[in-house]
Amino acid sequence: MNGPEISRINAKAGPAIILIEPQLGENIGFAARGMLNFGLTDLRVVRPREDWPNAKALTASAGADEVINGAKVYDHTSAAIADLRHLYAATARKRDMIKPVTGVREAMRKMASPGTSSGVLFGPERSGLTNDDVALADTILSVPVNPGFSSLSLPHAVLLISYEWFSVHGQSRDERIQLDVQPATRSQLLKLFTHLESELEASGFLRNPEMRPRMMRNLRNALGRASLTEKEVSALRGVIRSLSRK
Amino acid sequence: MNGPEISRINAKAGPAIILIEPQLGENIGFAARGMLNFGLTDLRVVRPREDWPNAKALTASAGADEVINGAKVYDHTSAAIADLRHLYAATARKRDMIKPVTGVREAMRKMASPGTSSGVLFGPERSGLTNDDVALADTILSVPVNPGFSSLSLPHAVLLISYEWFSVHGQSRDERIQLDVQPATRSQLLKLFTHLESELEASGFLRNPEMRPRMMRNLRNALGRASLTEKEVSALRGVIRSLSRK
Repeated sequence: MNGPEISRINAKAGPAIILIEPQLGENIGFAARGMLNFGLTDLRVVRPREDWPNAKALTASAGADEVINGAKVYDHTSAAIADLRHLYAATARKRDMIKPVTGVREAMRKMASPGTSSGVLFGPERSGLTNDDVALADTILSVPVNPGFSSLSLPHAVLLISYEWFSVHGQSRDERIQLDVQPATRSQLLKLFTHLESELEASGFLRNPEMRPRMMRNLRNALGRASLTEKEVSALRGVIRSLSRK
Repeated sequence: MNGPEISRINAKAGPAIILIEPQLGENIGFAARGMLNFGLTDLRVVRPREDWPNAKALTASAGADEVINGAKVYDHTSAAIADLRHLYAATARKRDMIKPVTGVREAMRKMASPGTSSGVLFGPERSGLTNDDVALADTILSVPVNPGFSSLSLPHAVLLISYEWFSVHGQSRDERIQLDVQPATRSQLLKLFTHLESELEASGFLRNPEMRPRMMRNLRNALGRASLTEKEVSALRGVIRSLSRK
């Protein structure tokens, strides 16, 4: 793990994750792992059913110790959200109340700038948020799900919100996998094709003169799409030499 | 659960989820729950460490019985992917090979139209995919994560891919890119590689037994990147036949 990287992301003030009456320590740990995967660290737990600190939570977090050990525990939701300026409720059930509903992606995109603290409320695994808790929030967060099987697990719901937050706010630079190998030059590729063509000619593959340009074009096309490296071009030339020597 | 709704989504042909040597039944079940939350049902398991059928998987799926009970189990990855036309590898580790890397969201947006089968490979919880398994895929799928804590749990990784698939394809509108040529199936590609390997063996190209796996992996990688069509696979097999007949 790499402290400075995490702090860098942290400084961008991701939302607090507030779990109300979570039933299982494993789920808290699994949620914490997902949070830290996407740079969130502010975990708040209201009346956990099991003891706290909780060894199962720590194990399930798979190394996200700083999130578990730094989690704050509260007796009341009101205390857990006291410092927050924007509060979202993660819930799929329809509520008998009027409240704006926003998609997760949209909400994370709109999430206020650093320093303005936001939080997302999650209810117990079995029952979800109570109406009283939903009423505390400004906005309901909704995730588009399969209407035939719509109940997200608690850690999965936390994960998706962390993921969407990070996909908007977390990336400072391009994280693509670096390639330290060079693609072959055009000239190396042309030599490969010429070599292949002459061996195919010798083997009788190109005996139909009308088909020949098209056949060679198709082969060039197919191999050309692969962005072959120098080494791969050499390997393929070795293959051609070996096969045609037989 | 609501059958017709699921079938409606299903009919849009989401990717197969292929778990290679998953260690824990719970993780398979938890992954299945996330799949069905986002309308995916095609689960394939290669050499699960625990017995199959697996009661823990069924319990952890929390009602996604149709995914668990419908899962197909294989001894070899090659059999599990034989019918697929586009294969992605979910991996975060750097690899010493050239392969296109695509973000999950981008990949799901590009995922081919209904009827063109795609799949995503996932490695074991502890170690992830082997280089040999990554070499089977056309494209590496990457999820942008906190570089200081980048290891996603297996069910979380499956969830994110299911979520991104659904966020593009689960809703009614159609943003997909149409393809008018079909890429070859994995089974056709595997036959091409087997054919090439046997001719190279006959020609003495593979006489160094220590180098052989690596040489073949490099060739598979190079040719695999080209997204060869059925016709191109036939043409290349003709080339191999012609050259080695000489």
